Amino acid sequence: MNKLVAEAIGTFVLVLFGTGTAVLGGGIEGIAMAFGLSIIAMAYSIGTISGCHVNPAVSIAMFVNKRINATELVYYLVGQVIGGILGSLVLFTFLNLSNLSTTNMGQNGFGDLGAGGALLVEFILTFVFVLVIMVVTGRKGNANLAGLVIGFTLVLIHLLGIPLTGTSVNPARSLGPAVFAGGEALSQLWVFIVAPILGGIVAAIVGKMFFQTEQGNESIANKKID
Amino acid sequence: MNKLVAEAIGTFVLVLFGTGTAVLGGGIEGIAMAFGLSIIAMAYSIGTISGCHVNPAVSIAMFVNKRINATELVYYLVGQVIGGILGSLVLFTFLNLSNLSTTNMGQNGFGDLGAGGALLVEFILTFVFVLVIMVVTGRKGNANLAGLVIGFTLVLIHLLGIPLTGTSVNPARSLGPAVFAGGEALSQLWVFIVAPILGGIVAAIVGKMFFQTEQGNESIANKKID
Amino acid sequence: MNKLVAEAIGTFVLVLFGTGTAVLGGGIEGIAMAFGLSIIAMAYSIGTISGCHVNPAVSIAMFVNKRINATELVYYLVGQVIGGILGSLVLFTFLNLSNLSTTNMGQNGFGDLGAGGALLVEFILTFVFVLVIMVVTGRKGNANLAGLVIGFTLVLIHLLGIPLTGTSVNPARSLGPAVFAGGEALSQLWVFIVAPILGGIVAAIVGKMFFQTEQGNESIANKKID
Amino acid sequence: MNKLVAEAIGTFVLVLFGTGTAVLGGGIEGIAMAFGLSIIAMAYSIGTISGCHVNPAVSIAMFVNKRINATELVYYLVGQVIGGILGSLVLFTFLNLSNLSTTNMGQNGFGDLGAGGALLVEFILTFVFVLVIMVVTGRKGNANLAGLVIGFTLVLIHLLGIPLTGTSVNPARSLGPAVFAGGEALSQLWVFIVAPILGGIVAAIVGKMFFQTEQGNESIANKKID
Repeated sequence: MNKLVAEAIGTFVLVLFGTGTAVLGGGIEGIAMAFGLSIIAMAYSIGTISGCHVNPAVSIAMFVNKRINATELVYYLVGQVIGGILGSLVLFTFLNLSNLSTTNMGQNGFGDLGAGGALLVEFILTFVFVLVIMVVTGRKGNANLAGLVIGFTLVLIHLLGIPLTGTSVNPARSLGPAVFAGGEALSQLWVFIVAPILGGIVAAIVGKMFFQTEQGNESIANKKID
Repeated sequence: MNKLVAEAIGTFVLVLFGTGTAVLGGGIEGIAMAFGLSIIAMAYSIGTISGCHVNPAVSIAMFVNKRINATELVYYLVGQVIGGILGSLVLFTFLNLSNLSTTNMGQNGFGDLGAGGALLVEFILTFVFVLVIMVVTGRKGNANLAGLVIGFTLVLIHLLGIPLTGTSVNPARSLGPAVFAGGEALSQLWVFIVAPILGGIVAAIVGKMFFQTEQGNESIANKKID
Repeated sequence: MNKLVAEAIGTFVLVLFGTGTAVLGGGIEGIAMAFGLSIIAMAYSIGTISGCHVNPAVSIAMFVNKRINATELVYYLVGQVIGGILGSLVLFTFLNLSNLSTTNMGQNGFGDLGAGGALLVEFILTFVFVLVIMVVTGRKGNANLAGLVIGFTLVLIHLLGIPLTGTSVNPARSLGPAVFAGGEALSQLWVFIVAPILGGIVAAIVGKMFFQTEQGNESIANKKID
Repeated sequence: MNKLVAEAIGTFVLVLFGTGTAVLGGGIEGIAMAFGLSIIAMAYSIGTISGCHVNPAVSIAMFVNKRINATELVYYLVGQVIGGILGSLVLFTFLNLSNLSTTNMGQNGFGDLGAGGALLVEFILTFVFVLVIMVVTGRKGNANLAGLVIGFTLVLIHLLGIPLTGTSVNPARSLGPAVFAGGEALSQLWVFIVAPILGGIVAAIVGKMFFQTEQGNESIANKKID
């Protein structure tokens, strides 16, 4: 139950700060930093309890690599979905209080890529992101620095992906904005659920084959040095 | 007494460099970095003596979690208030020497949010910021990396908050500029005192319930590895 | 063979994200961050297997300092060349799917420098980059932080080099875009192969003379603390 | 003698990359990052030999705190002066090869502050910078992370100082560009020698009084964890 709360807080922070920075006028570098630094902030705080997945694609990959069980997976997913929607709800409230438009909620979309192109882009982006996560939190990884490394990796993923799909790599991050933006954001949502999950699963399999990612540490960060 | 001096130096640096960068024309990313990197610089220097709160909301949360006592709290608050005002005084001097306007001192304000909206925004921003601080400096935290993590978290908080209230999350950071800017900055100051303190107190309570934040380390950073 | 795969993945990520950010409209800071953060992401993931050279100039310098043997060198170079071309192939696909021009593939060029000037610039940039790598991964280095330090160094190298040659310091990074862009990118490619290799060799020699870089660790990052 | 070479290389990199980024069109954030990341790159490489002062104000403060002796001080200063001039020489060469103007060499100047104002600004900026250095490399500091902390601190110092004086805090960084730019850069140079040295000396004294900075580690970074 504490893990569900932890994942909900973490996903709430990721969605509120990431999409909020996008909506309120940050540049590409600023938006990318907001998503990545959210991971750093959460990895070393709520990550002490849940490992800070804050992303269904990560939790499913962890399940595929047998690092969480089916019951845990359900708790993680529920927490992430709740947190993501709450993040968008709070942003929606901020925008209303400021008399700003709420048509842009930081939702993901196909852009000029079409469904197939967006699927490919999100598959590759998520594959890279989750592969880094599985290795750096795994037996050969660096538990102490993992939160920093994963956060910086998410900055990187956004620098390339923002001009393409806005960068999802995370179904919970796409769900919240889509619920409040509606329309195209909802009708295109399936791509940002399917592609990240597929990318994460393939990363888990590649990780197992080449990088021993089935043997992990329990927490993304915060292994004490002593 | 050394702790008072340390907190005064730290808050001086935070206010001078953070608000100074805002006033002298930095972009959102630059301003956010200036506040966050001030924390990194101070956490690993003056933090060796005082733990580098440099923020009344943090010190009150530490008091709520019984990690400092009432006498220490008073010393910390006095140091922070002095440091914050000195930071704005030096910036005021720099601006006068350059023949620049001193109406913009980097003060916080309601923007389009109104008092209630600004209260809500600052409450949530401070809750997230102080929760990260309490956990990462607590028993389950990472004392070695805490200064980096907290600094990057403050960058994050500013990326979202600058377009809204300018981001206070710190009464001492708002006090200095308000004293020199006067007018609306002074009349709206109460929000940037009340909301951060409330957000910090709730963070301390949530931290105690879920993250064992009552058991801390003495110093935010600089636990020696050996 | 695992090292070949690891180097291919790493170079793929470096080229796709680095040149992709350049092509899709990132600013100098964003492009520099994309290249540098690619190194951080890869150093702590595929670096656990291959050390994350992802750069022929680095592998040749490692060979000069006797830290890999001739057979390994060949595997590394093959992996890097394959990965670099795959990175540009995927970017080429993304651009086609978005109906964007593929004349700019993020290729390097002489700019206003001429061949001699570009040679000099790339020689000096690579010398500094590879010297840092050889020392920080060497006997006197900091294996734990090496991935972060090398990544930040590559950000630095790009901040200066982007307005000059676009910054290669890496033949594999220049090869992929040149193959797809053709024309001048291909005819000028030799400079971005010769200069980085020379810069790397001189860095290895200077490193050996002054910084004991012949005695290294096997992995750039990920030395476990315990 | 190795220390002289190390300091020359380090100061060469700082001046070439820092002022080069400024001259070739980086924004404030990019220039600030170039100076700061130069320190990170050099701290973990040449810092293993000399401690990476790359700044006469730092070396003099180290001498005041008895952490280097008079002979070492002379070697450090000579290396720094040589390195700084070489850095500007190489930048001068790059600009000539590109047929770009060499009137802007990234030199420091009074701006609108006048000599007195520039003295005050540089004194305060250097005081903060050197105080962080003395503490984080001292007995209570964090030798492992010191290079990162000092680098991020120099980013911070530049975010505030670039719009004022361009930010020196380092006589060797100001000397090189002044030699090649001549004119006002040379006539105003004395401020950027005197103020940083004074700021550094006061930081050493305050550090000794409050932060035990007389008891240091030999190297800024790279204390091995084992």
